[in-house]
Amino acid sequence: MKYLLNTWYVAAWADEISAADLLARTLLEQPILFFRDSQGSVQAIYDRCPHRFAPLHEGKRVGDSIQCAYHGLHFDGSGACAHNPHGDGKIPKAACVRSYPVVERDGLIWFWPGDVALADESSIADFAFYQQAPAAAKGKGYLPTKANYELLSDNIMDLSHVDYLHPDTLGGGALSSARAEVQELPDNKVRISWWAPNEAPPPAFGAHLKDPSIADVWADVVWHPPGYMLLRSGATEPGAAVEDGPHSVNLHLMTPQDAGNTHYFYANTRSFERDNQPLNDFIQQMLLGVFANEDKPMVEAQQRQMGNVDLLGLNPVLLPVDAGAIRCRRVLKRLIDSESAVLQAKSA
Amino acid sequence: MKYLLNTWYVAAWADEISAADLLARTLLEQPILFFRDSQGSVQAIYDRCPHRFAPLHEGKRVGDSIQCAYHGLHFDGSGACAHNPHGDGKIPKAACVRSYPVVERDGLIWFWPGDVALADESSIADFAFYQQAPAAAKGKGYLPTKANYELLSDNIMDLSHVDYLHPDTLGGGALSSARAEVQELPDNKVRISWWAPNEAPPPAFGAHLKDPSIADVWADVVWHPPGYMLLRSGATEPGAAVEDGPHSVNLHLMTPQDAGNTHYFYANTRSFERDNQPLNDFIQQMLLGVFANEDKPMVEAQQRQMGNVDLLGLNPVLLPVDAGAIRCRRVLKRLIDSESAVLQAKSA
Amino acid sequence: MKYLLNTWYVAAWADEISAADLLARTLLEQPILFFRDSQGSVQAIYDRCPHRFAPLHEGKRVGDSIQCAYHGLHFDGSGACAHNPHGDGKIPKAACVRSYPVVERDGLIWFWPGDVALADESSIADFAFYQQAPAAAKGKGYLPTKANYELLSDNIMDLSHVDYLHPDTLGGGALSSARAEVQELPDNKVRISWWAPNEAPPPAFGAHLKDPSIADVWADVVWHPPGYMLLRSGATEPGAAVEDGPHSVNLHLMTPQDAGNTHYFYANTRSFERDNQPLNDFIQQMLLGVFANEDKPMVEAQQRQMGNVDLLGLNPVLLPVDAGAIRCRRVLKRLIDSESAVLQAKSA
Repeated sequence: MKYLLNTWYVAAWADEISAADLLARTLLEQPILFFRDSQGSVQAIYDRCPHRFAPLHEGKRVGDSIQCAYHGLHFDGSGACAHNPHGDGKIPKAACVRSYPVVERDGLIWFWPGDVALADESSIADFAFYQQAPAAAKGKGYLPTKANYELLSDNIMDLSHVDYLHPDTLGGGALSSARAEVQELPDNKVRISWWAPNEAPPPAFGAHLKDPSIADVWADVVWHPPGYMLLRSGATEPGAAVEDGPHSVNLHLMTPQDAGNTHYFYANTRSFERDNQPLNDFIQQMLLGVFANEDKPMVEAQQRQMGNVDLLGLNPVLLPVDAGAIRCRRVLKRLIDSESAVLQAKSA
Repeated sequence: MKYLLNTWYVAAWADEISAADLLARTLLEQPILFFRDSQGSVQAIYDRCPHRFAPLHEGKRVGDSIQCAYHGLHFDGSGACAHNPHGDGKIPKAACVRSYPVVERDGLIWFWPGDVALADESSIADFAFYQQAPAAAKGKGYLPTKANYELLSDNIMDLSHVDYLHPDTLGGGALSSARAEVQELPDNKVRISWWAPNEAPPPAFGAHLKDPSIADVWADVVWHPPGYMLLRSGATEPGAAVEDGPHSVNLHLMTPQDAGNTHYFYANTRSFERDNQPLNDFIQQMLLGVFANEDKPMVEAQQRQMGNVDLLGLNPVLLPVDAGAIRCRRVLKRLIDSESAVLQAKSA
Repeated sequence: MKYLLNTWYVAAWADEISAADLLARTLLEQPILFFRDSQGSVQAIYDRCPHRFAPLHEGKRVGDSIQCAYHGLHFDGSGACAHNPHGDGKIPKAACVRSYPVVERDGLIWFWPGDVALADESSIADFAFYQQAPAAAKGKGYLPTKANYELLSDNIMDLSHVDYLHPDTLGGGALSSARAEVQELPDNKVRISWWAPNEAPPPAFGAHLKDPSIADVWADVVWHPPGYMLLRSGATEPGAAVEDGPHSVNLHLMTPQDAGNTHYFYANTRSFERDNQPLNDFIQQMLLGVFANEDKPMVEAQQRQMGNVDLLGLNPVLLPVDAGAIRCRRVLKRLIDSESAVLQAKSA
């Protein structure tokens, strides 16, 4: 499968990589080993010793390097062999592994699978709001999912599904009945927005309104290539300003493992009762249930019914509400095709 | 794999589909959803929403339709989209799924995977005897089996295996020693018969004879394409009329799931002690043991040793007793080839 | 995958095949059934009935034959059908299975997958030392491993891994620091030797030296095609004769199941405290732990990281210590290529 290469992907939550523990994760079909060096900086190298192809994640950190568990060669964060314990200790020229640019920012580990010369940290999306929110007003998680990452993005870009898949929590019927507005933004972003005045709010917001039976319900998702979504949604007293009602800001970050598997990272913050820890515990439990027991099984079932064929290859019957998801797919395809063309021109 | 298409296949026992529960089953490599509409009539539709390819069996019945669990579209038994809950509710022309002719008869659900115009209910085999038998003289079951349906049919068409695979219950040595007669019948049926006078009867019949040590032993199987067998067998006092001795009438119905998996339905009735419930319980337990612990593992092992190659492709050493099974395979191949030729002529 | 055919392979330990029990094992991608005839001689036949392809290992021994569990045909050790219980009992000419030359020697069962006319028992390696060792000074085992047999041979031919993979038992740092000498021997054998004077001995030997902190450490492996290794290693007081110190003689015998699976047989004897049963129990437990929990997982992980590609196809970075393993791979390739050329010339 073709992926966008010259872009930043989320590899992990920063707290998944401790000073002591190594993290092995397959991203874009490449086995990658993440570890912290003696300064605490995260390093990413190809997870396979070039000598006998042992997985380096079976080894251990020694100083700023990983010592292979099989024959003891050391590799540092640049991918260079830093030590050969055998015989005269000479290091063969070819004894190195690929390393990847890595940035730790806002509690996330980003990695760059493309041309190192093009890796520009300033292009990393700004998700600082999550770390800035108080501890009792937020939560996050990681859900490995057996489905293509675009199917998971589609799921977020078409929120009308909440009325059917999550009727008792996130859905209330409002979004299905509203017309979604789709807009292409600068930097290849896509926005989809729902505005449903005078509707029944979703239970999760209704409980925090004076009158839980009627509200102006809204949602807004901004997609960034290759698969990140900033989702804001809320409900407010009919006619009031949207920011006055309870609302939440969420991240849904999809990184492909391979054509049929995705590393799905999610996070959420809320605008109300931001120091209420028991409420936060309840909400995080509820959201984990929704994502792990409703979304994940559905998208995995969808993938199984589709087999290995891409969604558009099966000629889906599209509804107006699919406009956002389809726009994202087209933007991503355009970016990948354009990158491929440049690579082909270079190699020709 | 090629299957005979313009024919009726058994999809399920009627009691597998309740008023409330949906039944998802893959038949001839197609995922199919069976459900009862508000009148109790069984409907069969392709088990994949044309919108986003969610499995419809994850949804629920609403009126005469299935509501998709993902975005709430409704599909009725004709496969038409009966309701779109989104926006203005307009239903796209392409929003429909394939539906299949279905007939409920004699406790069986039959479905027709071929040309709808050719679906003729009068061609459904008459297996009414099973429902007509008293409750204490019959039993039935369903055994999904990891083997090709023709291997399972071969197993029934060559009953000599009972002497080796089921020596303590159904076999007694008589059938192996007898010569089997094979006969082609009208409507592409094939009969195979065994007549073994003055032999040791199988234990299951011997226990119901005055002298369990000697009997005229007989068996008779009529195969219907694509894979149904009506099996009658019994044992009688030497010289007496065959119907006077204990005998049984059985169904062995094989429906392909795919090249390597079969939905195997079986049923049996008997001629003796037809109101003896404890005896019936004992017999049903015994037969389930024979089919599930002896036949099924053997045919699955056979399939594993053969890999994905068809039986005849491996040049088996054939014995006279294989004549019935091989005749059925030839008839089925002739029917499939002839159907393919017609389809090719039409498309040319 | 291509294998060397005109050679003896270890199929089993002799005590894996009892008088009563059959042993089914896939060797070189062929399912083979081993059994003892009425004289106790081991026989090897293809494990698939030529009638309906039932696995013969589901059957039972009757006299000198195996009776197929499905329809009762008998096959003897020569592969001939010895009995057909059906009808007139005539045996079709084609009713036979392949049989393989088999030799039981020194507690091992050897089989020959190639041209029967070339099977020469005198070419079987002499491993009599194992049976001759006292019971309290030896042990053996069988470890089916999910890796190619050449990867497992490489593991033994490069013992420098013991310092990293087994640092607390077999490794002590000595072998990594020594230079390995490689030598091609007659009959396509390859020897690799390590000589490390005045080094810390491995814990397993150090415990049996007066001064466990310093010793002359040595190891020597002779590889026989297609994948057998006789490994001798020990440690002795600096300057003393090597045979004076504690040492062990070991077998590591690799037989391919298929490209990604190996039947790994190991055995060991020792020079010291040869009647100490508690010590023997301790050593056998320790070695099983080393092989099953350290070597086997590492080589399996290596295979997973390599996928289905051959080691040399991935351009490994080779170190001087790989010289022995690479020499074995070249010898084996030369033998297989030469055998293929002869076969092609014959068929042309």
